[in-house]
Amino acid sequence: MKKRTFGPQLFIYPMPVVIVGAIVNEKPNFNTIAYCGVAQSQPPMLAISMDKRRYTITGIKENRTFSVNIPSVEMLEPTDYIGTCSGRDVDKSGLFNLFYGKLKTAPMIEECPVNIECELADYMDFGGKNDLLIGRIVETYAENKYLTDEYPDIEKIRPIVFTRQDHKYWETGRFLTEAYKTGKKYNNLEDR
Amino acid sequence: MKKRTFGPQLFIYPMPVVIVGAIVNEKPNFNTIAYCGVAQSQPPMLAISMDKRRYTITGIKENRTFSVNIPSVEMLEPTDYIGTCSGRDVDKSGLFNLFYGKLKTAPMIEECPVNIECELADYMDFGGKNDLLIGRIVETYAENKYLTDEYPDIEKIRPIVFTRQDHKYWETGRFLTEAYKTGKKYNNLEDR
Repeated sequence: MKKRTFGPQLFIYPMPVVIVGAIVNEKPNFNTIAYCGVAQSQPPMLAISMDKRRYTITGIKENRTFSVNIPSVEMLEPTDYIGTCSGRDVDKSGLFNLFYGKLKTAPMIEECPVNIECELADYMDFGGKNDLLIGRIVETYAENKYLTDEYPDIEKIRPIVFTRQDHKYWETGRFLTEAYKTGKKYNNLEDR
Repeated sequence: MKKRTFGPQLFIYPMPVVIVGAIVNEKPNFNTIAYCGVAQSQPPMLAISMDKRRYTITGIKENRTFSVNIPSVEMLEPTDYIGTCSGRDVDKSGLFNLFYGKLKTAPMIEECPVNIECELADYMDFGGKNDLLIGRIVETYAENKYLTDEYPDIEKIRPIVFTRQDHKYWETGRFLTEAYKTGKKYNNLEDR
C-alpha cells in the first residue's frame, strides 16, 4: 500500500451545493456554498461554514435567521453565479421568486426543490478564515412534485455535487441499495 | 407556488458517507456516519456530528484524535455494516487493513480511497442527541490510482451518497460543468 500525502486538505467527497439566504441591510441576499452539514439529529440542527468577510454573514448575525435552499441541476447557472459575486456589489434579490415562512428574515427560494428555515443557535470562530454557523431548523418546505412516499426524493430533486479541488459540479447518480440492510452478511464477523 | 411543510427536518441533499476511526479502549474502532462537513477552509477543519452514546466518541474525546475515511461504492457492504453495530458488542478492527500516520491514535483504512487525519480541536453539546466534533486536519492520504492532476478525482474514488429520509445509498453521477464559469452570463444581471 503506497499512499501519498497532501498536507491538510478538505478531501470530503461528495460535498453538497446549497444556497444560503439572509436579509442584509434590509434586502434579501444569497450565497452559494458547499460547506453545509448536519450538526445534530435531534433536535435537528445544521452547520454552515462561511468566510467571515462574506456579506451574507453580517445579516445572519444581525437577524439571527437564515435559510438553506437546495438547488436542482436545472438551476446550475444562477446557483454558480451567486457564489461568484458579493451582495455588496450586486443585487441578487431579483434572481428568483422568494417566499417567507415562520421567520420574517429568512428569505427562501421558490425555485429550489427544498428549503430549510433556520434560527441562528450559535456560531464559532476557530481563529481562521471562517465562522461556523449553527442553525436550529424551524421548518422545511418542498413541493408535492419532489416527493415520493411523503418525503423529498433525491431523484426528483436532482441536487448538485461539488468537488473542491478541481472546482467541478456533478450530478448525483444511480440508486445503490437500502441502508442498514446490505451489511447484514457481516453480522457473523466474529466467526470468520 | 404550493409548498408543503414537514416540520424541522434534516433535508440536506446530498449527504456524504464517511467512516470515522478512533482508538477506543486501546482497540481501533470505526463508525459510519453521514454527518460530516467543512468547518473551516483555512486552516482546514471539518465537523462531524455523532450520537453522544456512540462508542467511538469516548475514544475521540480520550485521545483527542480521529480519522475520516472516504469509502468507495465497492466497499458498500462493510461500510453499511459498520454503521449498524457498536464497538461495544463487536470487534470492527479486523474488517480492513489499517495504517497510521502522524498521529498514533487515529487508525485509518487502507482500502478507503481517501483518508483524513484529525486532531480534535473542540466539541459542542447543543443540549440534544449529538455532539458536534471539530477536527483540525493534520494530514490527508490517497493512492496514485485515485488521482487526476495531482488531486483525488471523484470519478475514480466513487464515493457514496446517503439520503436520510428513505435510508438509501446512491452513486455520484456525471460531470456537469466547471464551477465559477457557468454562471458568467448572469454577470450583467443589473442590466436586465
